[in-house]
This record gives sequence, structure tokens and C-alpha cells, in this order.
Amino acid sequence: MTQLHHLPHHDGSELYSPDHTDHRRGATVRVRVRIPHEFGAVPSVVLRTVIDGEPRFQQMERGPWSPPHDDGATWWTGRLALENDVTTYRFLVNRADGTAVWLNGEGVDHLEPVDSQDFRATVHPAAPAWAREQVLYQIFPDRFARSTHADARTSPAWALPASWDDEVIHTGPDTPRQLFGGDLDGIVDHLDHLERLGVTLVYLTPFFPGGSNHRYDATTFDHVDPLLGGDEALVRLVQAAHARGIRVIGDLTTNHTGDTHEWFVAAHRNPGAVESDFYYWKDPDQEDYIAWSDVPSLPKLDWTSTELRRRFIEGPTSVVARWLQPPFNLDGWRIDVANMTGRLGDTDLNSEVQRLVRQTMDAVAPGSVLYAESTNDAAHDFAGDGWQGPMSYAAFTRPLWHWLRQPEHGVHHHFGIPYEIEPRYSGTDFVATYRRFTAAYPWPVRSVAMNAIDTHDTPRFAERADDDLQVVAAGLSLALPGTPTIFAGDEFGITGVNGEDSRAPLPWGEEPRLAEAYRTLVALRRSSTALQQGSLRWLHASDDAVALVRETQEETVVVVAARSATTVTVPLAAVGDALSLVTVLGDAETQTDDATLLVRTTGPAFIALGTSGPLVPPALEAAHAGA
Amino acid sequence: MTQLHHLPHHDGSELYSPDHTDHRRGATVRVRVRIPHEFGAVPSVVLRTVIDGEPRFQQMERGPWSPPHDDGATWWTGRLALENDVTTYRFLVNRADGTAVWLNGEGVDHLEPVDSQDFRATVHPAAPAWAREQVLYQIFPDRFARSTHADARTSPAWALPASWDDEVIHTGPDTPRQLFGGDLDGIVDHLDHLERLGVTLVYLTPFFPGGSNHRYDATTFDHVDPLLGGDEALVRLVQAAHARGIRVIGDLTTNHTGDTHEWFVAAHRNPGAVESDFYYWKDPDQEDYIAWSDVPSLPKLDWTSTELRRRFIEGPTSVVARWLQPPFNLDGWRIDVANMTGRLGDTDLNSEVQRLVRQTMDAVAPGSVLYAESTNDAAHDFAGDGWQGPMSYAAFTRPLWHWLRQPEHGVHHHFGIPYEIEPRYSGTDFVATYRRFTAAYPWPVRSVAMNAIDTHDTPRFAERADDDLQVVAAGLSLALPGTPTIFAGDEFGITGVNGEDSRAPLPWGEEPRLAEAYRTLVALRRSSTALQQGSLRWLHASDDAVALVRETQEETVVVVAARSATTVTVPLAAVGDALSLVTVLGDAETQTDDATLLVRTTGPAFIALGTSGPLVPPALEAAHAGA
Repeated sequence: MTQLHHLPHHDGSELYSPDHTDHRRGATVRVRVRIPHEFGAVPSVVLRTVIDGEPRFQQMERGPWSPPHDDGATWWTGRLALENDVTTYRFLVNRADGTAVWLNGEGVDHLEPVDSQDFRATVHPAAPAWAREQVLYQIFPDRFARSTHADARTSPAWALPASWDDEVIHTGPDTPRQLFGGDLDGIVDHLDHLERLGVTLVYLTPFFPGGSNHRYDATTFDHVDPLLGGDEALVRLVQAAHARGIRVIGDLTTNHTGDTHEWFVAAHRNPGAVESDFYYWKDPDQEDYIAWSDVPSLPKLDWTSTELRRRFIEGPTSVVARWLQPPFNLDGWRIDVANMTGRLGDTDLNSEVQRLVRQTMDAVAPGSVLYAESTNDAAHDFAGDGWQGPMSYAAFTRPLWHWLRQPEHGVHHHFGIPYEIEPRYSGTDFVATYRRFTAAYPWPVRSVAMNAIDTHDTPRFAERADDDLQVVAAGLSLALPGTPTIFAGDEFGITGVNGEDSRAPLPWGEEPRLAEAYRTLVALRRSSTALQQGSLRWLHASDDAVALVRETQEETVVVVAARSATTVTVPLAAVGDALSLVTVLGDAETQTDDATLLVRTTGPAFIALGTSGPLVPPALEAAHAGA
Repeated sequence: MTQLHHLPHHDGSELYSPDHTDHRRGATVRVRVRIPHEFGAVPSVVLRTVIDGEPRFQQMERGPWSPPHDDGATWWTGRLALENDVTTYRFLVNRADGTAVWLNGEGVDHLEPVDSQDFRATVHPAAPAWAREQVLYQIFPDRFARSTHADARTSPAWALPASWDDEVIHTGPDTPRQLFGGDLDGIVDHLDHLERLGVTLVYLTPFFPGGSNHRYDATTFDHVDPLLGGDEALVRLVQAAHARGIRVIGDLTTNHTGDTHEWFVAAHRNPGAVESDFYYWKDPDQEDYIAWSDVPSLPKLDWTSTELRRRFIEGPTSVVARWLQPPFNLDGWRIDVANMTGRLGDTDLNSEVQRLVRQTMDAVAPGSVLYAESTNDAAHDFAGDGWQGPMSYAAFTRPLWHWLRQPEHGVHHHFGIPYEIEPRYSGTDFVATYRRFTAAYPWPVRSVAMNAIDTHDTPRFAERADDDLQVVAAGLSLALPGTPTIFAGDEFGITGVNGEDSRAPLPWGEEPRLAEAYRTLVALRRSSTALQQGSLRWLHASDDAVALVRETQEETVVVVAARSATTVTVPLAAVGDALSLVTVLGDAETQTDDATLLVRTTGPAFIALGTSGPLVPPALEAAHAGA
């Protein structure tokens, strides 16, 4: 069992980076390291950064800041010069016994680390402050709900109309053709349900017309699919959601369009077309072309085209801009296949496209949010100047599956990784993997990363484990830094063996049997500034349990998550204050005395404990702000 | 003790990447993984690569190639598509027991790795083949030797003339002013010594005139310092060296010039000068400027200037080109402060400068070599299209020091890292750090990395440990992939407490007491294709010893290095053949039977054992080449 709470800690949160709102090039900002007394005597701590490609070392100062209550640790302060747009940094902690450790984003190591996993500070503006407070609810429009308007619509030629109770076709060529007929007014009809859950942000997968039920193969970006109710339905949905304090974002494919897209149709086999340079042709007749994963219905976009940039992402009349403005007023975008966008052979325009999209959004809709798909290690695609929040499959979803899956469920979908048998991680493995894949994200990026237990591209979590473990999983998605992301239907405990199968129509006649647990978790998250933006320190990791603490200057929340019967002990000195305000899901009991928090579980459990009073009185902090 | 020889292995060498000479964009090349039987049964091995930003997985084939003698392992083959200029890849090895491990440049891990430490294949041409065969000898001209011409020269105003036997001033403002008067003809006078050592490549630190003994503050790049004998002396040196089969390279500062450089003098306080845009001015009068580490004598170059590019690095009349052509005929360059070149604030022209320098060299002197200084994690600056070989302080020099230093020597110079006490690494730590910092280098880059036990920028190794440990250290620099790099004077066992002190004049009257050991090691290296370009597999690592094997299709060399009395056992199945041809330095005995190589040392020792016959008959390989 690793004594995680004995280790030095830093992250980019307010407690450790108190000048985080002053990040701009040329600024010097404070960074702090917390060294628990149990780590041993420490004669010096050194801040190592890289400026213009060269490492620089700076002795840090013991103090001068410390929390008003003894938290069993010594705090050190250094000054980080932000001379480049992205500054990597880490710490060298010298011990009195002559040994030393390095502290970077991945944790503590006695060997010299490489730069790629160091902490990263960026001078680019963070996502809007509201984004950190959201609980996101993902809706796949064809499968969420049918309004009364739906019956009157005629199915397009490509579609295989289905009844709401039909089995989902999840393999073979008919998979994208099965059309259940959910629409945007169907979502309006169920906003009560969303409000009861407590979710605050709706993410709609594409609403543009396409040649499939998923609509990632858009035929135009100029209007909403009439099958979903058209432009007016989107206006109605956003207005109705906003009236309840719920925001709405859309989904854009910057990597490709559909082969029925008006731009592609104009250019295909037509070398004279203005849109010819929007795509990659393999022959002068513009017959054959590059497509996403060689799927012919998804021709890849060529971002060297200035006209494509003008129409799609640049300026107030672009697609990116238009839907963020009246009458639609979307609150932001999620970008599909962001990791491949602009990349082909020796061309890499990814960061340029990111920045242009973001500039356009900042110009026409300041305060809109920009998430982006990443299925894998994505830290170095998120420098802060483009995409704001990654999807966290590698950092969160996959290691969570590996830790919480129940072998008797026997799931064989590994999100595309050809394991013979999906790994079975320990809690220690979960924490190590989470730290590894979040290490290099600037904190503002981590703060809005989409943490989902499943999505429309994965099996449902309920395929992998029982309900009580799904609650533990969802609890972690709400307890970790980032945007908790619920895939519509999770609250019903919907199953699904793969991404296609998981897009089952919501069973509105049934009781959403996990809704109460989700409501509790969402309420906990929304009530806690610490869970929304506090630092993250791991306190414990073992085979069957993990424990962490989220802290701001005003609040402390300790979370313990267990997959089975186990006991977790956390010294309260590591937390800094007595705890109360207990939330328990599952069978567990907690016990605190002056020195120790003891959690005993008899099975899967999620426990949160919050402070009643501030860890750090703001007045004291203000007195030290200039130090 | 880690059973390293039981682990799966891959690297970019010929055995594992047999089509390495066919690396060009669009090609598909074979990659192999070797899985020792002791690792356990393996039902499948998967090649994971990233194409245009998206991970791809491919099942590998068992066989079809295997060595003609049973090497106790199963080999697997996959096909790597080189669609991007740099392709990252790693392997997933599924075990019959249901567990799996990932294999990347850093080694084996049961947790999913991040991309940054994956193997990297590049489509860019490798360094010239001759570079892999070199043993490099670094000369600091002022301190190597004085010719008979030296006495007639007048010291410049900045200099403090010194006698050859004077103590080196190694701290304070006079450090760069002390001038011993070594010159290029002094090197010519001692080419016998170089030839006897067996070195094949001389690296001269700067020979341009400067305002210091180190000459990194050039006043011009147009002629050789008259204090060194002028242009004619360089011509004489290169001709004399070439006549003995010894190549010569120079040293360029692309990050800065001296403040007495003709370009700077023309532009300083003179806004109308053509050279104005060569530097970064802080004010319109061009009074104040950006300098390397704020040292005013080293103004930083601004690579946005096209005229600077034209004069310095672009085209056949540039500085880069001129010295590679007649009458000078240098064989390449080492680039100083390569890591900072072109980087300032929000500007990063580093890779552009790299490529331009390389293009110019390829145009005027194809087959010339391009090394570059890096003091730290540098893998991501070496994509193969610019700098060809890094300096290996982080991968080799520092962990070597940490492992082999003798605490009683009490050295306090940590190459700029403010440890309170320099770490004391185990052999296991040395291997782990070496793997960590070499993981992401394309193999052609690793193959020519400069592996030095010390340089003009570090203390002498002899400050840290006794002679016998220096022989172990030098042995490793000659046994690992890369360019073994000897700092002139190492063979005399010269001491030096820091980089300045280590530049002591060579004591030509003394017996070079380590020369015999160096001769043995250099001869071993030069006689062995395996040591020059073979794969590197670690066989053993413990506190006091490491063992490795270098393999080509024709040859196998096993190396054991120990810092003290210890015993190392290597199963011969891991090596694949019986061994003979033993080289032993230090007190050690080796014993081989059918199954085992046993090495017993009574103190520091370096042992090399080579096969007498080929591991893999080339004829057999040819038969499988198309498979």
C-alpha cells in the first residue's frame, strides 16, 4: 500500500498556484509545494523550469505562506517566470538524509525525469469560469426521445425506420441506417428529467442532416436536420434549456464532412469547383479522395484551403460562429476527431485549426466553451490556445473500467485496444494511469476535461459491472477535476456491448433506477467549490480502494471509493481539518477521531466528507499575497 | 535484481528493423519483437502506431524469421507504415495468463503508456554510415598543445598569458582570460598520440577568433584565429589528420555570437545597419539587447532574419558551407547551445534552423556529420531532419556519474542541478535512466549520440572516482550505441573540479597512464560491428553491475561492467551463442558452460566477450527478406 499522503504535492490549482489568474507572458507567478512532515526533513526545494529550451533552477523559499491550521506539512514557495507560451516545470526536493526526489505531473521519482511529463503553465486564457461548475449530459438525438411531431415525418431513403422498443442494430452495414426518430423537441419534453438530475450542460451529438443516424457525415452545416425539427427546434431547445439554467453545446466534425455534403458534392468529379481545395483528391479528375479511416462516406478536409477556413471556422459568418449567435445561441462546441484534424502525411495544421476555431469563438461568443475528442494521450495537443477540454478516455475512462470491471461480466470490447483479455487494474494502477495521462495538461485544461464512465463510442458501463459499482464510477467522474460527463441513459442503467449498442433509445416508461444516486452525486458536486476547482491530492491507493482530497482555500472534501469490502485509513493531518458533512453511497461506515479518518466498507462504496469551516481564512491569504 | 533478459525487446537496429535503410514516407517496413521463452507463453503481439494523430493496431505474425541457432526466444514480425515524417510506435504483448504488457522505448510496463516515450521511426536520412564507426576525441585548442609557432605570437589585450605549467584559473572573472597559447599546429604535432589511441574523429571547440580562451564568443566566422595559426593552420591540420584517416569537425554557435563579432559591432547602436535584424534589441537605439543567460558578451541571434540565414546557414557561401569545402574540408559540425537556438518568448524557429543547416551541409558536403549540444532531455529536438547526434549528458554522463562516483571523492559539481548531495545510483538506476532518456530517439540518432564521461563543460571524471572506475566508465561509453567521446586528457587521468578546471593543459611530459586501457577499449570498439551498430539489449542490472549485449546478424558482444566485487550470471540462451574473444579490464574472471556465463569480479571491472562466428548467417536472412 503506497503511502501517497506522505509525498510532496503540487498542482496548478489555486492553493498551489495562487496567481493563476495572472498567467500572461512576461509575468512571474508563485508556485507552492506542500511537503508532509512524514516525508522527512527537507533542507531545500528547487524549482526547475525550462526557458527558451534551457533548464533553469531556482531555490524556493520555506513558507512564507502556510495554512492557519497545522496541516502536518511545510509549504515552500517559488517564482515561476512565464517567458514562453507554455512553460514546463518540476521540483527537486532535497532530503536531509542526502537523497532527493523529483516531483512532476506524474508524481515523485528518485530518478531524473524527462520533460514531457512535467507540469505545464500556459499564458493562454482558461476556459470560461462557468465551465468548471458544469455537470454535462450527453445526448444522442436519434435515441433520446421522440416528440409528438416525430410521427408526421417521412424517413429518408437511406433509413430503416425503427420503433422505440426495437432492438438496436449494433453490428453490420445496417447499424448506421436504423432510425428511431428522436428529435430536439423530444429533449424539450424531458427537460424536467434533466433538471431533476441536476445536470447543467447538454452536449448534443451532431444535429446537422446526414446520411446516417449518428449524423457525423453531415450533408450541410447550414441548417438543423428537419428530422430533428429543423432550425426552429434548436432555437426552442436552447431557449427552453437556458430558461432552466441549462446550457447547450453542439458537435462539429473538423476532420471530415459526409460525402453527401454540399461542399463535397460540388467538388467531386468537378475540378473547376470553388470547393475543390477543401478535400484531398487522389487523381486530377477528383474521383478518388482521402477519407477518415478509408471510409468513403467521410472525406477528409484539407485545411490549407483559405476558402474552407473562411466558410467553416474563421470570422463571424463561419459555421463555427453562426450557431453561437442569435437565434441559436449555443454555448460552445465539442469537436469530433480533433486529434486527426489537419493532420495528413507531412502536413500538420492541427494547432493552427485549433487556434482559428478558438479565435472565432472568442470574437463572436466570448465565454463559449470548446471541448475536443481525444481517445488517447492528448496532453500535448492541449496547450491552452485552442481546444480547452479533452475527452479523458486514456486518463479516466479506460483505467476506471480496468479497475472496476467485474470479471464475471466478461466484456470483450476494449475500446479498440486488442488485449486478449481486458486488464484487471488495482486501485494503485488506476491512480498511476490517471496521473500519467493528466500529468502534462495545464491545470485549466484538466479543470474542464470531460470525465465520462461511458459515451456513445463505448460500451455502457453497466455491461462491465453491477449498479453499485457504476455509482462508484460515476462518483469518481464527479469527484475528479474536470467536467463530469453523463451519457443520457446511464441513470437508467442502460446496457450496451459496444458504442453502437450503447445508443439504445431511452426507456422512458421505466424507473431510472440510478437516478437517485446520480442526483445525490450531482448535488454534491454542484454544492462544492472544492470538487469543482480544488487541488487534487491522492491520499491512498490499494487494490480495492482509492482516496483523494480536493481543496480550495475555503473548503476540503475527502473522497473514498472502494470496489469491495476493505478498510481505508487516512491521517487527518494530511487533510488539515476535522471533517463532517458525510455523503455515503454503498455500505460503508466512517469514523473520525482527532488523528484519523477510518472508512470500513462491506462492498462497493463511494464516500465524501467535507469540512464545515474554511481550511484557510481568505483574510490571512490576502495578507501574504504580496510576499 | 531485475531479470532484464527475460523481457521482450525491440529497438531500431538492423536485427529488429531489417528494412531500416528503406525508411521513406509511404514505405511499409518490418519491425520485430523478441520474446524470451522465460517471459511465458504469448498468444499474440500487437503493433500500435499513430497515423495522422490516431492510434492504429495491427496483429503481428509469429516468426516468420528466427535466428538459425535457438536463442531461447520467439521472434514476431509486424509491418510499420511510415505515413508521417516521424512515426511513433510500441507493442502490446498479450500473455497466455490473460495479463499483458506494453513495450516502448523505455522498456516494459503493465500500465498503458503515454506516446512521448514510444519508439520513433523517421523517414529522414540517417547520419552518414561512417559516423557510427567513429571514436571521437574532443580538443579544446588553447589547452591541447603549443607548436613552435606559438612563442612568436603576441597575446591580445584581453588575455592573461599563462605558462603551460600554470594552475588553471577556474573561478572568477579571469577564468576566460587566461590564455595558454595552444594552437592547431600543436595538434598536428601530436597526431601520433591520437593515432596510437585509435581515435578517428577530432572535434575542435571553436577556432574562430574571440574575446576569450574558449572562443564561444566569436568576433568573426570568416577566418581562423591567428592565435591558433590562422586559416593555413586549419588546412594543415585537416590535411594531416585526413592523411592518417582521422576526420575533423568544428564547433558553431547558432544561438549567439560574441559582442565583438563584426555583425554585432556593425549593428550595435546603429539602427541603419544591414545586420540590425540579426539580434534582439530592447530599444530603438539598439543599445541594449537579449543575450545568452544575460551575459552581455553573448548577444542572441534572431533567426527571423533572412540575411542572417543567408550569411550564416543557407547556401554554398554561408559560414556553415564554407568550412566544409576546400581548402578547409571539415567533416562536419558540432552546434553549441543547440537547444536554445531560435527560441525566445513566443518564437520557436529551432526546427527550421536545424533543417536549413542540414540542407546546406547535405548540398555542399554530403556525408558530413552534424552533432548538437543538449544538456537535458532532448529526444523531441532530434526528429532526424536536422541535428543528427545529441550530446548525452542526461542519458549517459549524469547517470554514469551517479552510479560510479566514489563518495569519498566528495565532488560537489552536479552539472548545474542543485542537489544538496549528488545522488548515488544503483546499476539498476543507471540502466533505467539511460533507457528513459534514449527512449524517444530514432535509432539513427541514438547511433551517433555523443557519449562522453566528461567534457569541457563538466568536471573531469577522475575527480569523481579512481582510475579503474574511469576505465569502467570509458568502457561503457565505447560499448553503448552512439559515438564514444573522449575529452583530450582523459587518457592522462587529468582532474578538474568544474568545466573550467577540466580544461587543463595536457601534461605531455607525463606518461598518459590510462592510454593503454583506452587503446584496448578503442580497438575493441573499432573491431566490432556489433559495438558500432548492433542492437542493445540489457541482460542484467543490480546495485554494482550491469550487463548488456550488442548484436548484429554477424556478431554478438556481451559486456559486463561492475563498480565493485560482485557476481553476474547471464544465461547463454539470452545471448544465443557460445562466447569467446574475451577482453578484461580490472580484476575479474569469466566462466562459460553450455548454459551460463558467470562473471566474478573482485573490484571495478569491464569485461567484453564476443562470438567467434555469426549469430545469424546472412544467407538465411536473405532467404527470408521477402517474407
